[in-house]
Amino acid sequence: MINWKNLDTLKAYGKLAGLNKRVCLPELMAGEGGADRVASYSVPMACGLRYNYAAKAVDDEILDLLAELADEAQLTEKYAALYNGEMINTGEKRLVLHHLTRGQLGETVVADGVDKGAFYAAQQQKAAAFAEKVHRGEITNAAGEKFSTVVQIGIGGSDLGPRAMYLALENWARQNDTLKLEARFISNVDPDDAANVLKTIDAAHSLFVLVSKSGTTLETLTNESFVKESLRKLGLDPAKHMVAVTSESSPLAKSTDYLEAFFMDDYIGGRYSSTSCVGGVVLSLAFGPEVFARFLAGAHAADETAKEKELRRNPAMLDALIGLYERNVLGYPVTAVLPYSQALSRFPAHLQQLDMESNGKHVNRFGEPVRYPTGPVIFGEPGTNGQHSFYQLLHQGTDIVPLQFVGFRRSQAGMDMDIQGSSSQQKLCANVAAQIMAFACGKQDANPNKSFDGGRPSSIIIGEQLTPEALGALLAHFENKVMFQGFCWNLNSFDQEGVQLGKVLAKRVLAHDTDGALKAYSELLAI
Amino acid sequence: MINWKNLDTLKAYGKLAGLNKRVCLPELMAGEGGADRVASYSVPMACGLRYNYAAKAVDDEILDLLAELADEAQLTEKYAALYNGEMINTGEKRLVLHHLTRGQLGETVVADGVDKGAFYAAQQQKAAAFAEKVHRGEITNAAGEKFSTVVQIGIGGSDLGPRAMYLALENWARQNDTLKLEARFISNVDPDDAANVLKTIDAAHSLFVLVSKSGTTLETLTNESFVKESLRKLGLDPAKHMVAVTSESSPLAKSTDYLEAFFMDDYIGGRYSSTSCVGGVVLSLAFGPEVFARFLAGAHAADETAKEKELRRNPAMLDALIGLYERNVLGYPVTAVLPYSQALSRFPAHLQQLDMESNGKHVNRFGEPVRYPTGPVIFGEPGTNGQHSFYQLLHQGTDIVPLQFVGFRRSQAGMDMDIQGSSSQQKLCANVAAQIMAFACGKQDANPNKSFDGGRPSSIIIGEQLTPEALGALLAHFENKVMFQGFCWNLNSFDQEGVQLGKVLAKRVLAHDTDGALKAYSELLAI
Repeated sequence: MINWKNLDTLKAYGKLAGLNKRVCLPELMAGEGGADRVASYSVPMACGLRYNYAAKAVDDEILDLLAELADEAQLTEKYAALYNGEMINTGEKRLVLHHLTRGQLGETVVADGVDKGAFYAAQQQKAAAFAEKVHRGEITNAAGEKFSTVVQIGIGGSDLGPRAMYLALENWARQNDTLKLEARFISNVDPDDAANVLKTIDAAHSLFVLVSKSGTTLETLTNESFVKESLRKLGLDPAKHMVAVTSESSPLAKSTDYLEAFFMDDYIGGRYSSTSCVGGVVLSLAFGPEVFARFLAGAHAADETAKEKELRRNPAMLDALIGLYERNVLGYPVTAVLPYSQALSRFPAHLQQLDMESNGKHVNRFGEPVRYPTGPVIFGEPGTNGQHSFYQLLHQGTDIVPLQFVGFRRSQAGMDMDIQGSSSQQKLCANVAAQIMAFACGKQDANPNKSFDGGRPSSIIIGEQLTPEALGALLAHFENKVMFQGFCWNLNSFDQEGVQLGKVLAKRVLAHDTDGALKAYSELLAI
Repeated sequence: MINWKNLDTLKAYGKLAGLNKRVCLPELMAGEGGADRVASYSVPMACGLRYNYAAKAVDDEILDLLAELADEAQLTEKYAALYNGEMINTGEKRLVLHHLTRGQLGETVVADGVDKGAFYAAQQQKAAAFAEKVHRGEITNAAGEKFSTVVQIGIGGSDLGPRAMYLALENWARQNDTLKLEARFISNVDPDDAANVLKTIDAAHSLFVLVSKSGTTLETLTNESFVKESLRKLGLDPAKHMVAVTSESSPLAKSTDYLEAFFMDDYIGGRYSSTSCVGGVVLSLAFGPEVFARFLAGAHAADETAKEKELRRNPAMLDALIGLYERNVLGYPVTAVLPYSQALSRFPAHLQQLDMESNGKHVNRFGEPVRYPTGPVIFGEPGTNGQHSFYQLLHQGTDIVPLQFVGFRRSQAGMDMDIQGSSSQQKLCANVAAQIMAFACGKQDANPNKSFDGGRPSSIIIGEQLTPEALGALLAHFENKVMFQGFCWNLNSFDQEGVQLGKVLAKRVLAHDTDGALKAYSELLAI
C-alpha cells in the first residue's frame, strides 16, 4: 500500500532536520581519510559509469537517515507503481511511461486497450525503418537526391533533449563514421531562429521533423508554416520534405502534409521524451537506428539500476536524497551541473528543463501548498570553460552552490597530443579532480582575498567515454533522480500548470483584448 | 574625497533594511495604476533602448532610499575615478580602463608613460586595417586564396563575450551583406572541442585568432599547439594562418609565429574585453570594421549615460540598485536573464561570467570579509524557449527569482509571415508582455495547482532592433550595472583570485605530485 505523504510528515525527515550537525568537508577530505572516502563513497551506475559522492557534505549517520527516509517515502514502491502503469500523473490523470520507451521494467502495461510497450517499440521500429530508407536513398527529395540534413522543429522537450543528445554524439558519430545526416534545430518563435537556420542549410536536401504532441504548440506550428512557405518559395514541395512526430489524436496525425507520421502519447511528458520517437526520429536519421538503440539500451540499464532498494547501491536514488538533504536541510537553493566534456555543452540546459519543470512546484500532488522548498534552480556550462567564467563565485561567493561534475577518461574524437608532458584529455581530467578538492578543502592564505573556505560540496559521475550507452545511462540517471526527489517532496513531477497563464495572456495580447499594464507593455513592444 | 565603505555601514542602507515594507506587485500592477507605472517607471538608455522597471518590487519611497544610497556610496564619483584612471583594481594594483576602448569619458589617462586612449585606438585601427586587407584579398593563405572563416582560440573572457557578440550579429550581418567571414570558436581544453571545429571547417581558408593576455593560459596554448599540429598535417604553414591578441609583455608578442599581433594590456579585464581587440579582431574580420565601430559607439553612448547623477535617469545605476535591493533586502540569491531574441542565445552565458566573476566575492576591496550577500547566481536562456523549459519553477516554484527581460520590436532578418493574424515577431513580443504580467500579478484559481501567486518581479529592456549600436549599449549597460553593484558592496570587481587554487592543484595532478583524496580522484580519472 502506497502512502503519498509530505516530506515534513516523515519521521526520518524529522530526525534528519533535528540532527543539528554539519560535516566538516575540509577535515573529512584531508589526508588518507579523504582517500578512503573517495574509495568508499562510490557506487557503480549502468554502462560502466560511477557516481562518487565523497565530496558531498554527508557521513554515514546522515546516509543512514537518508536511507530511512527513502524507505519511509516508499521510493522503490512508487517507482514500481509508476513503471507498472499506475496513474502517477494524477493532475492530468495520466500514466507516466517514458521508461517503457526503452525497455520493460515490470508488468505489461495496457492502457486504452493497447499494450503500450509494444506500441512504443513499434513506433521506434517504424522510425528505424524510415531512417534506413533515407540512408539508402529509397526515400529522397523530389529530384531523387539523398537528404543530407535533418532539421527538427519543436520547442521545450521536443527541442532541448534531442538537441543535447545530438550534440553529445555528433563528434563521436563523426569519428565512428555513423554521422549519416547533420542535424539542425528550429525552436524559438523568434523569426530570426528559423531564418538563420534556413539561410544556412541546403533546403533542397533537408528533411524536416515536426514535433508537437498536441499538434497545437504555437511556436512549432508557426515555424512549420514558416518553413513550408520558404520551401515553396524555393520551388520545393513541403510534403516531400517533412515528417511529423505527434500523438495519434492530434490534427497532424492524419494529415497528408507529411511523408510519414510517428506517434507518441500523453503518457510521455515532453521533458522525458528523448527516448521516445521525439528523439528517436531525428537521432535515428542523424546517427542510424543502431546508435539510437545503443542509447536506449544505456537508458534502460540505468532504469534497472534505479530499482535497487538499498540506497547506497542505487546511484539515482542516492543522488536524489543527497540533493534533498542539500536543499531542505542545508538550505542551498541552486545546483550547478558541470560536465567536463564539450560534447555535453547543452546537457545542462536539458537538465534545467527536466528538473525545474518537474519539481519547481509549490503544491503537493493533492494540490495542497507545501511548507518546504522543492526543486532548486539548475544551471551549468562545460568545464574547463566554466572555470574561466562563473567559478569565481562558486569558490569565493557568499553563498554555497552544490556541484555535480561529470567526467570521462577518454575523449570522443581520439584526436589528442602531448603538450608539456600531458595530453589535452589529461589536462581536462586533472582540472576536474583539482576543482573537486579545491571546492571541498579550500586553502588558507595570509591574504584573505586569496583564501578559500572550502566546504563546498560536489559529486562526480565518471565514465570511460561518452558513448551512446553512457549517454543513455546519464540521461536516465538524472530523470530517475528527479523522479525520486519528486516522490520525496510529494509533488506531481509530470505536469506543468505553471506554463499555462503566460500562454493565455499572450493570446489576449495578440487578440488586442487587453487593458491596463498589459496593454501598456503591448504598446511599448509595438504589437 | 572618495570613501570606500561597506554596504552595511551606509546610513541609507540601514534605512532601507529597516523599512520593513514589501510592495504588493499584484495590486500595484493591476488596472490603470499598473498602466501608469509602466509609463512612469521607465528610463531611456543609449541608442533608443529603454529600461522599464514597472514590474519590479519597488515604489517611490524605496526608490528615494536607493537614490540616497547611490549618493552616499558615491557611485558617480567612483565611476569618474575609474574612467579618469585611478587604481580601482587595488588587489592587482591596476587601472580599470575598458571604457576607454570605446571612447573618452573624462581626462586623458596616461599610464606607464603611454596615453592609453590613444593606445587602444591605435590597436583598433590596426585591427581594422588588417581586417580590410583580409577582406580585399591582400592578406591571403599561402596559395593566395582568400580566407573564408575566422576561428578564435581563447577561453573565459576571450571566448564568451566575443562569441556572444558574434552570434548576436551574425544574422543581422547576413541580412545586411556585411558577413565577411564566418566565425568559429575553440575554447575548452577538452580535445573534442578543437577536434570538432577542425573537422568542420575548411582549414586551408581559415584564419586563427589566438587570444591570451598573459600568453600563458593553459587551455589556449594547448589549443594553439593542437591547431598548429593539425595545420601542419594538412601541409599548411601555421604562421600564415594565425594572428595573436595579447599584451605587449607576453611571450606571444614578439613571436614570428603570427601574421600579426594586436595588443591589450592589464587594465582590461578578460570579461570586460569584448570592446578591446579581444573582440575587435574577430568581429572586425567577421563583420567589417565599420560594424565593429558602430558596436563601440553604442557602448560608449551607454557609458556616457551611466555618468548621470540622478538615479532615475541612469538606467545602469538604477538596474544595479534595484538588483541590490532584491539581493540584500528581499534576500533573493538568483537572477535570470531572459532575452526574447534568439540572436542573444549566448548573451546570458556572457553575463554569467561578467557578473559572477566580478562580484562573486566574500571579502571587500581591503580584503576584509563582508557580512552581507554579494553577487547573485545568474542564468538564462532566450524566450520563448525558456517558457517551455524552466519557467514552471519561476512561476510556481517555492523560491522567487527576479527576472531581467530583453525584447525588440523588430526582428533582425526581416523574414516573417502572418499566421493566424499575427507575425512571428508579434507572437514573440506578445509572449514577453504576457510573461511580465503573469509573473507580476499571477492568477487565482479554485484549483491550487493552477493558481499563481504573482509577486515575481521583473524588468525589461526594450529596443527597436538588435543592431550593432543596440548590442554595444546593452553590453555596456550590464558592465556598468555590475560595476555599480560592486561599488555598493565595496568589492574589487576586477580581480578573480577565486580561480587560482584550482589551477595550482591541476598542475600538481599533472605533475603526479599528489596524495590523499586528490591522488584517489586522479587515479579514478586515469591521469
